[in-house]
Amino acid sequence: MTAPFRDTNCSIERTLNVVGEKWTFLVLREAFSGVRRFADMQANTGAPRQVLSARLARLVDEGLLRKKPYREPGQRQRDEYRLTEKGRDLYPLLVALMHWGDTYLSGDSGAPVLLTHRDCGAPIEQHFRCAEGHEVAGPREVTPLPGSGSALKSA
Amino acid sequence: MTAPFRDTNCSIERTLNVVGEKWTFLVLREAFSGVRRFADMQANTGAPRQVLSARLARLVDEGLLRKKPYREPGQRQRDEYRLTEKGRDLYPLLVALMHWGDTYLSGDSGAPVLLTHRDCGAPIEQHFRCAEGHEVAGPREVTPLPGSGSALKSA
Repeated sequence: MTAPFRDTNCSIERTLNVVGEKWTFLVLREAFSGVRRFADMQANTGAPRQVLSARLARLVDEGLLRKKPYREPGQRQRDEYRLTEKGRDLYPLLVALMHWGDTYLSGDSGAPVLLTHRDCGAPIEQHFRCAEGHEVAGPREVTPLPGSGSALKSA
Repeated sequence: MTAPFRDTNCSIERTLNVVGEKWTFLVLREAFSGVRRFADMQANTGAPRQVLSARLARLVDEGLLRKKPYREPGQRQRDEYRLTEKGRDLYPLLVALMHWGDTYLSGDSGAPVLLTHRDCGAPIEQHFRCAEGHEVAGPREVTPLPGSGSALKSA
């Protein structure tokens, strides 16, 4: 598993340029939890007001959240923040963060949150499978190759 | 999908406290690519020397990497950095970062790197499945519940 990950075109690095910051992940956690309003996000994450404001603006600019105006009786119009499809597609990333923390950082008490299958109640697991339908256990069964966007091909 | 994610015990937040920083992820990318030496990691990531040094020390302290001494002829002894099982278990997280970047940040040229099944060559995909074996398409089919480590239970 050597060279291809070292491609100067790296999807990991590009993704981190968009979401690679703790408050950004916590904002996304809130969004996946159905939290849509600034004040609720602030209360739940503990992010400083200006930091939260900047992170939300970036996520809107990048197309991971979209704003939708709302107005509470007697108050000025405000914006709700909702996940776009691009944002929702970060779900495997959030679940991977959560499951690793459940395994290694929960101490004796166990997982704070259990993700369960809505239909049968059994816990959710994350798997790798290839397009041919074979189960893939982990990195040792994976071969990275230069893709169509590789910088190595033209080098 | 509301309350349980807002638990004050959050595995996402705990995980980000360990790995939630761009250089840390890029160091892990290198480790998964088989890169073990400081100079190579520095060359591949572009991380400033002191930053790389601090991130490696943290990853060793947290048990994600372990040091192994080596000595090139005529040089002083140095350390290699190797993934532990705890570190290797971040693979789903790295793949999730990479696949999202492939989808949304690769432009027209496509994925820089293709992860393929070692045995058959078909591309790798990440899936959710419940412990009963049902396929789970995404967040809409997932119900979060308080787990044994929830702060909500004792509140």
